[in-house]
Amino acid sequence: MVFLNGVFILKNKASIPVMDRGFLFGDGIYEVIPSYQGKLFYLDTHLKRLQRSLDAVQIPNPYTNNKWLEILEQLLGYSQSTNQSLYLQITRGADTQRKHSFKKLNPTVYIESNQFIVKNKSLLEKGFSVITQADIRWSRCDIKATSLLANIMYIQNAKEARVEEVILHRNNIITEGATSNVFMIKDNTLYTHPADTHILSGITRDLVLESAITCHLKIDKSGFTKNKLLNADEVWISSSTREIMPITKIDNCTVNDGKVGHYWECVYNYYQQLKND
Amino acid sequence: MVFLNGVFILKNKASIPVMDRGFLFGDGIYEVIPSYQGKLFYLDTHLKRLQRSLDAVQIPNPYTNNKWLEILEQLLGYSQSTNQSLYLQITRGADTQRKHSFKKLNPTVYIESNQFIVKNKSLLEKGFSVITQADIRWSRCDIKATSLLANIMYIQNAKEARVEEVILHRNNIITEGATSNVFMIKDNTLYTHPADTHILSGITRDLVLESAITCHLKIDKSGFTKNKLLNADEVWISSSTREIMPITKIDNCTVNDGKVGHYWECVYNYYQQLKND
Repeated sequence: MVFLNGVFILKNKASIPVMDRGFLFGDGIYEVIPSYQGKLFYLDTHLKRLQRSLDAVQIPNPYTNNKWLEILEQLLGYSQSTNQSLYLQITRGADTQRKHSFKKLNPTVYIESNQFIVKNKSLLEKGFSVITQADIRWSRCDIKATSLLANIMYIQNAKEARVEEVILHRNNIITEGATSNVFMIKDNTLYTHPADTHILSGITRDLVLESAITCHLKIDKSGFTKNKLLNADEVWISSSTREIMPITKIDNCTVNDGKVGHYWECVYNYYQQLKND
Repeated sequence: MVFLNGVFILKNKASIPVMDRGFLFGDGIYEVIPSYQGKLFYLDTHLKRLQRSLDAVQIPNPYTNNKWLEILEQLLGYSQSTNQSLYLQITRGADTQRKHSFKKLNPTVYIESNQFIVKNKSLLEKGFSVITQADIRWSRCDIKATSLLANIMYIQNAKEARVEEVILHRNNIITEGATSNVFMIKDNTLYTHPADTHILSGITRDLVLESAITCHLKIDKSGFTKNKLLNADEVWISSSTREIMPITKIDNCTVNDGKVGHYWECVYNYYQQLKND
């Protein structure tokens, strides 16, 4: 079952008019919200970011937060599995003709819920590989938009290189992954890119930063170079569906002799605790 | 009537599955082909560019050039008006689940034909206004992709400022308009941005460059600064549907005291001749 514009229908029956601006222009935004044991994880924070994306592209929010909660919970009710990942997309809606400029339309709302398999600790402890590439995306990566062609090309490259993710650099500064945020540890300091328009500031990113006190880490949010990344003590990527994933190989270089670091374990434990709260 | 995946149907009956990657990711490319007096204008060149866009994003071309011609002519047959603009979109197709990486799918093909009203010479001679803004788009503007959110935002800005177009600059160099190419004349030389990955090299752009010999213009394709633009003798924007449009006001500055230049008239006449050939 999926949700489309007010109704719950079978996924293979869900269709939209070709005039939908999501189809014609990639004119929409989205969110991905994890649900653990039937409980939506940091829903308010996700809805706040949703509102920020909508405001940035001038699409009105079709529902109140209470209505969102009601819809998402109803959708979760159709599923059998314990952990779900909710994908929620809002486009500007369908017009009668294709023109770039827009007027007031009824936004299109599409939501699906999928089983969400969390990688267990012993699997994560093996470490993951990534490659690096130049960041060719636009300069408003802070908007969680559906115009995702650049991201698709990166993830396809990752798939072909048999790695987990592509880590991006703009003017030699590491921005983020194609579908994740990036962290590195050097000498007890946690480094990440500032939350400016060149990255999408993730909810998981905020929770990693929040864990720093517990894990006795200093924080530096001024960004770091590719060279620093390759010489880090630890490297992690984070996202709602990956949680916090330790990286042990970047291009042809190993991180920390290919071993997952102890700061990762502390942050991992902190995050698992939040899920159980 | 529109064309969707092999069938001609009424536009308001044309729909696609929500799983279409064009809807979920802006994962598609497009073309706009003008037709004058029922004759497709530079079809082969448009189909060549279509192929280039498809190759760049690894979407297979679903039809041969002969088949494209057959479909476009059949669609033109349904219309009454003399001049038509054909909009043609190909997305990677619909998958069963949303994931960034892709596999072999059947591409989605959507085509519509709309009446195309060419502005007459006396209207063009009044000149048009534009504004300038920083180019925040990605670095593969040479791909005519449907991930167009940045372009939408520019054209909406143009609409709100009551001007024809937004001219973009990257690192102080004029790249192109949000939906057009940009030219300027200074001292008998025609300047434009090189056809690299920061612009979409238009078919009309090529024809403007081709007209330079006839119009006794030297050509400089090395690009130019915003300051040079504001001090130009003439400024034009070009696109398949705008043809060649003279710009007489940029932000709060007038070009050539607000008068349309004589080089524009020469290039305009050259282009009209091509349409009648």
